Amino acid sequence: MTTHPWDTVWLGGTLATFDPNRPGPWGALPEAALGVKNGRIVWIGPLTDLPEPPDVVAREVRSVPDTWITPGLVDCHTHAVFGGDRADEFAARLAGADYAELARAGGGIRSTVRATRAADDEPLRAAAEARLRDLARDGVTTVEVKSGYDLTVEGELRMLDVAHAAGRRAGVAVQGTLLALHALPDEFAHDRAAYVDLVAREMVPRAAEQGRAAQVDAFVEDIAFSAEECAPVFRAARAAGLGLRVHADQLTDSGGAVLAGEWGAASADHLERTSPQGVRAMADGGCVAVLLPGAYLTLRDDHPPPVAAFREAGVPMAVATDLNPGSSPLRSLRTAAALACSLFGLTPAEALAGVTREAARALGLDDRGVLEVGRRADLAVWHVKRPEELAYWIGGELLRTRVLEGIEEG
Amino acid sequence: MTTHPWDTVWLGGTLATFDPNRPGPWGALPEAALGVKNGRIVWIGPLTDLPEPPDVVAREVRSVPDTWITPGLVDCHTHAVFGGDRADEFAARLAGADYAELARAGGGIRSTVRATRAADDEPLRAAAEARLRDLARDGVTTVEVKSGYDLTVEGELRMLDVAHAAGRRAGVAVQGTLLALHALPDEFAHDRAAYVDLVAREMVPRAAEQGRAAQVDAFVEDIAFSAEECAPVFRAARAAGLGLRVHADQLTDSGGAVLAGEWGAASADHLERTSPQGVRAMADGGCVAVLLPGAYLTLRDDHPPPVAAFREAGVPMAVATDLNPGSSPLRSLRTAAALACSLFGLTPAEALAGVTREAARALGLDDRGVLEVGRRADLAVWHVKRPEELAYWIGGELLRTRVLEGIEEG
Repeated sequence: MTTHPWDTVWLGGTLATFDPNRPGPWGALPEAALGVKNGRIVWIGPLTDLPEPPDVVAREVRSVPDTWITPGLVDCHTHAVFGGDRADEFAARLAGADYAELARAGGGIRSTVRATRAADDEPLRAAAEARLRDLARDGVTTVEVKSGYDLTVEGELRMLDVAHAAGRRAGVAVQGTLLALHALPDEFAHDRAAYVDLVAREMVPRAAEQGRAAQVDAFVEDIAFSAEECAPVFRAARAAGLGLRVHADQLTDSGGAVLAGEWGAASADHLERTSPQGVRAMADGGCVAVLLPGAYLTLRDDHPPPVAAFREAGVPMAVATDLNPGSSPLRSLRTAAALACSLFGLTPAEALAGVTREAARALGLDDRGVLEVGRRADLAVWHVKRPEELAYWIGGELLRTRVLEGIEEG
Repeated sequence: MTTHPWDTVWLGGTLATFDPNRPGPWGALPEAALGVKNGRIVWIGPLTDLPEPPDVVAREVRSVPDTWITPGLVDCHTHAVFGGDRADEFAARLAGADYAELARAGGGIRSTVRATRAADDEPLRAAAEARLRDLARDGVTTVEVKSGYDLTVEGELRMLDVAHAAGRRAGVAVQGTLLALHALPDEFAHDRAAYVDLVAREMVPRAAEQGRAAQVDAFVEDIAFSAEECAPVFRAARAAGLGLRVHADQLTDSGGAVLAGEWGAASADHLERTSPQGVRAMADGGCVAVLLPGAYLTLRDDHPPPVAAFREAGVPMAVATDLNPGSSPLRSLRTAAALACSLFGLTPAEALAGVTREAARALGLDDRGVLEVGRRADLAVWHVKRPEELAYWIGGELLRTRVLEGIEEG
């Protein structure tokens, strides 16, 4: 019996490594080979430099000529677990209703809170699984899923558990984020401080247990929470070893980006109304700017985030679906990338780095998002002639196959 | 041996008939049954009114509870047959290049003409088939496909033949449209009149043969053709019994809508810069307004078509993908409907009538687009709780099954 050094070798596609140490926008390597062992990338190089013939070096040889191979896509901002939908509100907004008004009137996030609390585990999981499968079908291998539609201790933990269960079944890696500061639950309507205290003292430590959540997020906005209210929750997150995220400056310039920068959050997200001061704070704090064109589109916004300022300040830009029932019913990360180009003026190279390398960075993950020896073998293999196509076609089946920790998921 | 009156009965979904004689925006019929015989709808009504038990009345009983059933979607404006792609131009535009400038410099439509002429039949067909399958996967049963990327007599006919062949293999009904007035071919650069004459005298009559094309279209624009140049071609189309379409007022108000109205064209399409006079002409001429939000998005336009004026004037609005490699690389008609809501302010009910009833009208087809006795049994069966969801979710697999002339295409 022969023993092979590697489990699999992928042959003949062009790699878009997104490795900044390789030249060009894609860090491209044509006619490449990529070796996988125990779910990790163990070798990358020109096919002709393989140390031994393919069938000697690897147990399984996968030949994919005429493809591009990218890192598996990373959707770094979703709310993929929720009960109900809000297609009615979508129609109401198109008939003239305002998002913030709907929220104040008990619609918006709070209507999804009611539907999520009322949902049993099984349908909640099944619906989330279907959404994750939709993302996976378009090349995603890692999805961040936030809590924030239950807003009780047990309920928020349940949402995170459901997210992980849905991810296992859909064949995607899920990273959980505690977003208890998403909306003030009705039962605390007259005691905001008590809710913030509950989040900091109970929810954050429990979400950190067993890896349920890796980051803590907060919706900083007039209709949600203030920077001051975030402070105790962020302190608790740091104490528990969790990273920070901020929903920042989406509807108003409410100081979210400044807050993210000051706390050294992994990212600030949305950013349509971020001030130059906010951009500077993000640059100083090392924050990724997570752009969410699905929400911009669906809310019919006309004030794009300050992309030129992010470029100039050297703030890395990620792109995500923001998949959620209220403001971004978007179930394709490739479409998010295409929208980031057409709505925000990103180049295809920026948008695609935004759904791979920079998205992983927003999640605080240095083991994926780039094709490099030592990282996870999370791959997407595409039927395209050039990577620009991935941010150009909207819809369409471009994915040939998808690999999660070395295992082909089809 | 029992003989059944019907071939198939569909049971238990809610019908969105889009029949204006039924109440509400959807012409909805809950807990419905729909009988099919020889590819046509022969019965529609409440399940409880079935004339005989399902297994007696029909050879095949298909029970689809918890679904909505709509007419199969109709994509009434595509350029789905072409060689090459223009992802490079997409990137160039995002780096600052202008669409009309690229066209004048030999990019744009003319670059696709070169690629299409150079392509063999088989890869041209295979690529078109893949695009039609993408549309079909999202509920489309009828697709209009235009010529216009070859601009020679034999080449334009080849494009139409390829479109029909691709449609047969993809399981969608294709209606061909001759768009020889798409761009002036280089070989006629110094004799525009001779090209127009060739289109009118040779291309139109030959496209009409064997049902290759049912309509003739023209791109009326500063960078394309004038109203005066269209006249002989439109006369030839009328003589050959073909309907008329116009690419109108997309980049400038160049009188396309007025022209469409004056000629009683089936539709005018794009319409971002249509004047009040153009809207009136369309209303008088009975033209459908075909809205193409994919091109608006991709060209980063900020001047939407005059939707309020169309409503007020009673001009019916259809929505299509405009699937093409230059200005609308959009491979989902549902996404076009969602974009028409978010970018143009259509209601979900308007957008969905726009991809069914009004799209069929733009094609001059009165045998589909509405669920009504006597029409084709072209159906889309959806996993949704309400039809608004079809114009709300972007991406995602919502389709349960698709029926073309009574045959389930899966």
